[in-house]
Amino acid sequence: MKATATAGSNIAIVKYWGARDAALNLPANGSISLTLDAARTTTTVRFDPALKSDALVLNGRETGGAALAHVSAHLDRLRAFAGVRVPALVETANTFPEGAGIASSASGFAALTVAAAAALGLRLSERELSALARLGSGSACRSVVGGWAEWLPGTRHEDSYAVQIAPPEHWDVRDLVAVVSTEAKAVPSAKGHERAASSPLFQARLREVEGRLPAVRRAILERDFHALGVLAEADALSMHAIMLTSAPPLLYWLPATVELIRQVWQWRAEGLPCYFTIDAGPNVHILTLPQAVPHVAARLRALPYVQQIIPCGPGPAPRLIPNGA
Amino acid sequence: MKATATAGSNIAIVKYWGARDAALNLPANGSISLTLDAARTTTTVRFDPALKSDALVLNGRETGGAALAHVSAHLDRLRAFAGVRVPALVETANTFPEGAGIASSASGFAALTVAAAAALGLRLSERELSALARLGSGSACRSVVGGWAEWLPGTRHEDSYAVQIAPPEHWDVRDLVAVVSTEAKAVPSAKGHERAASSPLFQARLREVEGRLPAVRRAILERDFHALGVLAEADALSMHAIMLTSAPPLLYWLPATVELIRQVWQWRAEGLPCYFTIDAGPNVHILTLPQAVPHVAARLRALPYVQQIIPCGPGPAPRLIPNGA
Repeated sequence: MKATATAGSNIAIVKYWGARDAALNLPANGSISLTLDAARTTTTVRFDPALKSDALVLNGRETGGAALAHVSAHLDRLRAFAGVRVPALVETANTFPEGAGIASSASGFAALTVAAAAALGLRLSERELSALARLGSGSACRSVVGGWAEWLPGTRHEDSYAVQIAPPEHWDVRDLVAVVSTEAKAVPSAKGHERAASSPLFQARLREVEGRLPAVRRAILERDFHALGVLAEADALSMHAIMLTSAPPLLYWLPATVELIRQVWQWRAEGLPCYFTIDAGPNVHILTLPQAVPHVAARLRALPYVQQIIPCGPGPAPRLIPNGA
Repeated sequence: MKATATAGSNIAIVKYWGARDAALNLPANGSISLTLDAARTTTTVRFDPALKSDALVLNGRETGGAALAHVSAHLDRLRAFAGVRVPALVETANTFPEGAGIASSASGFAALTVAAAAALGLRLSERELSALARLGSGSACRSVVGGWAEWLPGTRHEDSYAVQIAPPEHWDVRDLVAVVSTEAKAVPSAKGHERAASSPLFQARLREVEGRLPAVRRAILERDFHALGVLAEADALSMHAIMLTSAPPLLYWLPATVELIRQVWQWRAEGLPCYFTIDAGPNVHILTLPQAVPHVAARLRALPYVQQIIPCGPGPAPRLIPNGA
């Protein structure tokens, strides 16, 4: 009744923004991401009849409130699947700081799903695990898949899950996360998804993404870094255009975000292979290739407003750790 | 054969972005603006058979190149109208610095059109003057109208001109222009207009603007400052969303632009009546009411990245100055 799993977060090249069904986390559009190696969550789940209720230890601290409620609701889904009603202790830790622009809910719910399923002795396919992880946090479904993952949006729970486009070893693209703020966002992503459809431009984005998905798939399969980068920047700007035109508008950028966009364009003009993408926050992910990592990192370190650089590469699917923490 | 005219620039509440016909400056959408009092261009045109060719003196300096060519092409239209072929000396000066986020082409071509028409003895209606000014620079057609002006987009030259929604004395809304950079834009507006249709979101913006125009008209007629401000911010963000999603993307914002957007929202949360709008550049126009001007100006002066504040209010239609400069 105990298992430990570790899962990587992911960075989306085509973003998930706006839900078709907010309760089921069915997305309005398909999305594509790279599962990351260095930004990981490791989670141990122990089901124990001696416990009075579920408990959560997050980065070494007992945590209640909304975070515990969210985890408990997710455990309920897995318990219902297994036909048990035993409370669980969940101990979870991230290798990266929260609020750094890395989706801890993606790696968190991927690790929780895989660990809880194993602890309950459930034999689930990757597809089933991905769909289940999605119920905890939409983009977690992509973190159940290693390497390059595509979330097939679907129209009901069973049909909305991620599949692998290419394994991590297919293509060594790097993501240097430039952290410019670790403050909690004024509007969490979940609330933002609800607001997406208020943008008069939203339906046009959905049509645009339909065309972008095959282009990104092709760029990945052909290892065309320029194509991938241009598509990644265009999709990030498209998502932020939807945010800016929502009612009321959502502005996740800080001054440093704009400065970094301009820097990335400048460095590229100077010959460095680098492109940005930006999630629902102010931090900037810089996509680059292994040989350029030292150069990009050196330039980032020279910028006073970059608080931290988190270097990531392609990561594997979640795995169980036999002698868990 | 000589006349002097002075004309105010204007700030658009609903922006012109994207042309239906680039040669004729027929816009893809209607737009609404306020003609400004303090940001003016004064232009003297003297037709003189003794001149070898047109000459331009801009802010006291003889100027050739593209600026002179642009002015000459505009004079040709008026000369063709009048049936004369006499060269002209054009002396023009702005009350505001160039590149400050105030459209000098709007006041410039409004003043040039009115002065040249008078110097040539042409008796033109406001509608004819507005359409002619538009051929020089699209938004100049709105500066031919005093106060609150709407540019009716039309489908051919004669049908594309501005009309007055309300005179300047109808409603004393102020525009404090917060200048954060006076550098020339990397991509001039004329080039930007050509790129607008490359945004997958552009058609959706055009549909959105169809609904915004009557709402802005109503806000002006009812002197509803909150409604006007929310609509102005939404339209500015919509135009910048189109810019960001063009191919290649257009980013006119600087870090200070984002900081000012956030400041305006903060000040409003504190009770100050202020809303922003942003043209194709990094500078921020802060719309406010007379009683709040000292408070907004004091806060702007406290921001180290605001280089200059240019206070404007509603301005009249262009007028001829009898004993011209």
